[in-house]
Amino acid sequence: MTEKPAIILDPHFRTMDEIFAPADFEQLKLLANVIWAKDQPMPDDAFREALPQAEAVVCADWRYGDEALREATRLRAVLTVSGGFPRQIDYDACFARGIRVLSAAPAFARSVAEMALTLALAAGRDVVSGDRAMRAGHEAWLHAGNREAFMLYDKPVGMIGYGSIARALQPLLLPFGVSIRAYDPWLSDSYLRRCGVEPADLDEILAESRVIFVLAAPSHENKALLSSEKLALIPSNSVLVLVSRAHVVDFDALTAMVSEGRFKVAVDVFPEEPLALDHPMRRAEKAILSAHKAGPTQEGCREIGNMIVEDLDAILRGLPPTAMQVAQPELIHRYATQTIRQRK
Amino acid sequence: MTEKPAIILDPHFRTMDEIFAPADFEQLKLLANVIWAKDQPMPDDAFREALPQAEAVVCADWRYGDEALREATRLRAVLTVSGGFPRQIDYDACFARGIRVLSAAPAFARSVAEMALTLALAAGRDVVSGDRAMRAGHEAWLHAGNREAFMLYDKPVGMIGYGSIARALQPLLLPFGVSIRAYDPWLSDSYLRRCGVEPADLDEILAESRVIFVLAAPSHENKALLSSEKLALIPSNSVLVLVSRAHVVDFDALTAMVSEGRFKVAVDVFPEEPLALDHPMRRAEKAILSAHKAGPTQEGCREIGNMIVEDLDAILRGLPPTAMQVAQPELIHRYATQTIRQRK
Amino acid sequence: MTEKPAIILDPHFRTMDEIFAPADFEQLKLLANVIWAKDQPMPDDAFREALPQAEAVVCADWRYGDEALREATRLRAVLTVSGGFPRQIDYDACFARGIRVLSAAPAFARSVAEMALTLALAAGRDVVSGDRAMRAGHEAWLHAGNREAFMLYDKPVGMIGYGSIARALQPLLLPFGVSIRAYDPWLSDSYLRRCGVEPADLDEILAESRVIFVLAAPSHENKALLSSEKLALIPSNSVLVLVSRAHVVDFDALTAMVSEGRFKVAVDVFPEEPLALDHPMRRAEKAILSAHKAGPTQEGCREIGNMIVEDLDAILRGLPPTAMQVAQPELIHRYATQTIRQRK
Amino acid sequence: MTEKPAIILDPHFRTMDEIFAPADFEQLKLLANVIWAKDQPMPDDAFREALPQAEAVVCADWRYGDEALREATRLRAVLTVSGGFPRQIDYDACFARGIRVLSAAPAFARSVAEMALTLALAAGRDVVSGDRAMRAGHEAWLHAGNREAFMLYDKPVGMIGYGSIARALQPLLLPFGVSIRAYDPWLSDSYLRRCGVEPADLDEILAESRVIFVLAAPSHENKALLSSEKLALIPSNSVLVLVSRAHVVDFDALTAMVSEGRFKVAVDVFPEEPLALDHPMRRAEKAILSAHKAGPTQEGCREIGNMIVEDLDAILRGLPPTAMQVAQPELIHRYATQTIRQRK
Repeated sequence: MTEKPAIILDPHFRTMDEIFAPADFEQLKLLANVIWAKDQPMPDDAFREALPQAEAVVCADWRYGDEALREATRLRAVLTVSGGFPRQIDYDACFARGIRVLSAAPAFARSVAEMALTLALAAGRDVVSGDRAMRAGHEAWLHAGNREAFMLYDKPVGMIGYGSIARALQPLLLPFGVSIRAYDPWLSDSYLRRCGVEPADLDEILAESRVIFVLAAPSHENKALLSSEKLALIPSNSVLVLVSRAHVVDFDALTAMVSEGRFKVAVDVFPEEPLALDHPMRRAEKAILSAHKAGPTQEGCREIGNMIVEDLDAILRGLPPTAMQVAQPELIHRYATQTIRQRK
Repeated sequence: MTEKPAIILDPHFRTMDEIFAPADFEQLKLLANVIWAKDQPMPDDAFREALPQAEAVVCADWRYGDEALREATRLRAVLTVSGGFPRQIDYDACFARGIRVLSAAPAFARSVAEMALTLALAAGRDVVSGDRAMRAGHEAWLHAGNREAFMLYDKPVGMIGYGSIARALQPLLLPFGVSIRAYDPWLSDSYLRRCGVEPADLDEILAESRVIFVLAAPSHENKALLSSEKLALIPSNSVLVLVSRAHVVDFDALTAMVSEGRFKVAVDVFPEEPLALDHPMRRAEKAILSAHKAGPTQEGCREIGNMIVEDLDAILRGLPPTAMQVAQPELIHRYATQTIRQRK
Repeated sequence: MTEKPAIILDPHFRTMDEIFAPADFEQLKLLANVIWAKDQPMPDDAFREALPQAEAVVCADWRYGDEALREATRLRAVLTVSGGFPRQIDYDACFARGIRVLSAAPAFARSVAEMALTLALAAGRDVVSGDRAMRAGHEAWLHAGNREAFMLYDKPVGMIGYGSIARALQPLLLPFGVSIRAYDPWLSDSYLRRCGVEPADLDEILAESRVIFVLAAPSHENKALLSSEKLALIPSNSVLVLVSRAHVVDFDALTAMVSEGRFKVAVDVFPEEPLALDHPMRRAEKAILSAHKAGPTQEGCREIGNMIVEDLDAILRGLPPTAMQVAQPELIHRYATQTIRQRK
Repeated sequence: MTEKPAIILDPHFRTMDEIFAPADFEQLKLLANVIWAKDQPMPDDAFREALPQAEAVVCADWRYGDEALREATRLRAVLTVSGGFPRQIDYDACFARGIRVLSAAPAFARSVAEMALTLALAAGRDVVSGDRAMRAGHEAWLHAGNREAFMLYDKPVGMIGYGSIARALQPLLLPFGVSIRAYDPWLSDSYLRRCGVEPADLDEILAESRVIFVLAAPSHENKALLSSEKLALIPSNSVLVLVSRAHVVDFDALTAMVSEGRFKVAVDVFPEEPLALDHPMRRAEKAILSAHKAGPTQEGCREIGNMIVEDLDAILRGLPPTAMQVAQPELIHRYATQTIRQRK
């Protein structure tokens, strides 16, 4: 046991059972001497005692301070159980020391992508409003019930943000024969083309797509990117699917337009959660509403543990991680929602 | 104009605009001298006058009698604008004379397949009930809202009936990495394996699939195939998606089980349409209800005209049809719902 | 045993071992009372004795005469072990009686498609001439050795004939990102588009493709379709891959052009086989030569037996065949090489 | 012009025309003030003069010394035009300063993958030996010519090394329905499974694959990994395709086994290049020989320039590179052939 490398596992706000399938946790214990691994937050003194031996720390955020980071002389990686990067860690120190900082965001990619497709299809085919009509007893049947419905096949689709969710969504869209345009200012045109999507500017995507997926991670650059003016470009009978963060949208403007029936929308993320009970979006006929459920499925959460084991295995063998998202010096200070500590 | 072959186009119960995109109808007029082509039923005398020259008749059903068929000495094909085969035509005479009888069923394959996937995903991810909860103000957020949700990825899927809908659905399912079992007594095991699905018996599919798609065309052999006993095999938290015909299911038994919450269901077809306003299925929490809208989308209906043009083009050039479903002597008398005229 | 349906199995010019994997033959014996099943031709008297009970005949050609066909009152299908349709059978009688006539051509589709891709790649990358140079000791290395080589990726590809070989070849080409144009006068433009290829006329395909696959079955209409004038359209450094039949090409003109180094060619089929030892094609530097080996691999031949079992299973249960190619009244009299008996 | 960032472009041993399509070089000049960009090596004094302004250096190797690296105070990236990483650069200094070091290896991935598939198919179907037989006049026709041939469809395939070539090869193999096992000690089992290949140990791959692709980059760990003992595991009638580096194989043992006809081989890389004219591999009947032509196609070389433009565009905008291979601290000192400077 003593020969195995030590890792600290302090997953609180998540529980152990939420993120680890039993087999994955067993494998983790084969790889490393796992310290803590409990549902409650690790007490500071226990943490500081274990730290000098730790080769990796798995945590929700780096709430232990800069001194702790300096004391962690054997540290090779910090892995978070969250979908964002740690806010409070000194990234410059990590990069200088070659410490890998890893986010669990990719664990949710398939879960969010599946929900994004589900919402797009349900909106296109009027499945939610159709069920509501059946329950109210005023449904229209057959062809007459499909007046505002459209098929996804062969339609132009837009993606705002082309990251891990977009890459997971793309294969789900391919059998529908859609053409995909993507807007992502962090990626070059040739990269996007190589990935099989057509680079496009934001206006073009909004004005010419039948389904628009908002998939961008929140950054200092994209706060309310979909402003009132931009939203006005969306044609009627198109669908806007919002699954990354409400940060990217002027939510009041969106609510007003959807309430007027300007276009269809499917929303999984809101500026305040839970959403106020009297928020007008709750009554919009053209909306499909989902309580931030796109990511945290049971399968998605268990994927976190699976990726942690995969990457710890690699890191402890002196190899690069292959599953989680690696903090990149060029990007880390651009992320917004988590107000990541700024560069010195 | 006189040199072009004559075809009769009598689409009533459908309208011309419903089934023909303008470009398709233009192309049809280039191929043939098109007689009638109006929304009202063609008067019998006009029909009988045009018949001796007609090389093809496009109609909803063969409501013209056996004598008319005999008079149609130049007839090479009867194409229906419906999803079933004509009921009242003398198939034995058609087969003996080499007259192709064609159904528009494949026009709806993509439309129904897309709806089947939509319903399966919406049921798995609790999108319809989740929206209902948001509107009622008692939704659960994040992980807590996903207690009964599941992702489609990697799950076992079953298909009851492996015809044109199944073949259109399969590519939509493939990117989810699902394993597909299919039950179809009209198809051999080796054919199913070659198509990439695993042949299985009905009980196995019901007991071991997370999503069960009912896709079988109604036949004399499959009336209430999903009996009360069979439905009892379905595990809780599985989803039954019913999109072909209610004929295949004991609908009372299904309603009772879903009302008790035994499993989830998504239903697009009902034993009586419109469904009685007091039918208990209308209040089942675990159901998604759709008013027979899977097939007749605007795009699906326009596909009918497109396929008619494609196959008339072939037939008038002396070539086999490639788009519509060809009546097969082995199968035609097995179909049930349309009570096709029996073999002499 | 006596209750099983009787089938006659007279595969000569093929041997039983060539076409049947042991498991397939075992399955066949479970389905039917198999009569003959030997490598030598079945004696006529034995055949005539067995015929009245036979529900199906598996043979190389119908060498038994019209009277035998009339005596075969229970006959439902004739299945050939050859890649063409029987030449000597009375098709009009078969169609009138509803007897299915089936060809084993699809058994070879994957085998020929794989060879067609292999030849195209080997020609594009100069693999055969490169190996020859290495053996002669005058090879050029690295970049210098690739002066006339090209990659298949992203290149325009043409198919002359879009039948079972083309449909098997298409998925092998897709990962190379090629655009595919197809010429097939028996198929409509919309069918071809639905299959994912662009319909084009012959001249366009010859003039603008980097790789041209000749895949057409020989017909009365396509004898020497690739005439000297047509072949002259092929750009230098393109590749012509000839795998269906030499019938389709003016072979003397082709030989002359390749000998002059006008373009590259890969040839698996010849106007006379074996090819004369002094035929100039044997010395053409820009040719890859193959002794009619594209189809008859061991795996391809065993596929014949597998398809026979699949289709006999269906036919004996009263269902349509799903594996072999069904003779179509519109096409059967158009095929050429086997000089199929003409319509009365 | 002066406002554009400065980059040094010193591509010698490659020429400008070899690596840059005209449009790519035009785009590069829009992005940056390009210094040098000639076919001859850049003189040292010109280099040192330009260096303090340079934000990136594109070169074949870092032949400029450590002092130059220290003087390059604005340097953000070193991009090589070669398929390996620079040998002579101080990686520890680069990692500490956040300088990206990039290799053009991925430019060759598709080119090598296509050749690997070509060689595997040509060996399996005896295309090269078959052409040789046709030219010598002793070929066997049809089924008889396929005695030692096999189809790739459905066969077990092994990959030794799962890097960029393997990832490009995998989609080309998928339509053949093969199962793929991979051995790569730098990658975890779960990563390989996620990529769609089955992790396996070396012995299993050698003993049980019908086609074995050697794709591993040379490292200190894999010198002659395929020793005489390992090669002895390969079944007769299997194919070994060697396209990464001869370093990975005991080439004398391989030559002996192939000369004896133990199995088939296709070789693109040799321990000495050019290969000695009297090397026995040049006469091995069961070998396909290629003069290191898998990578440096014209298209592959032009891909280098395309990737350089893509990544310079990103880097000059402060974003991470997305096209070229990024030197990873965990791996860089493990690579062998280029004897990369060891960690201090």
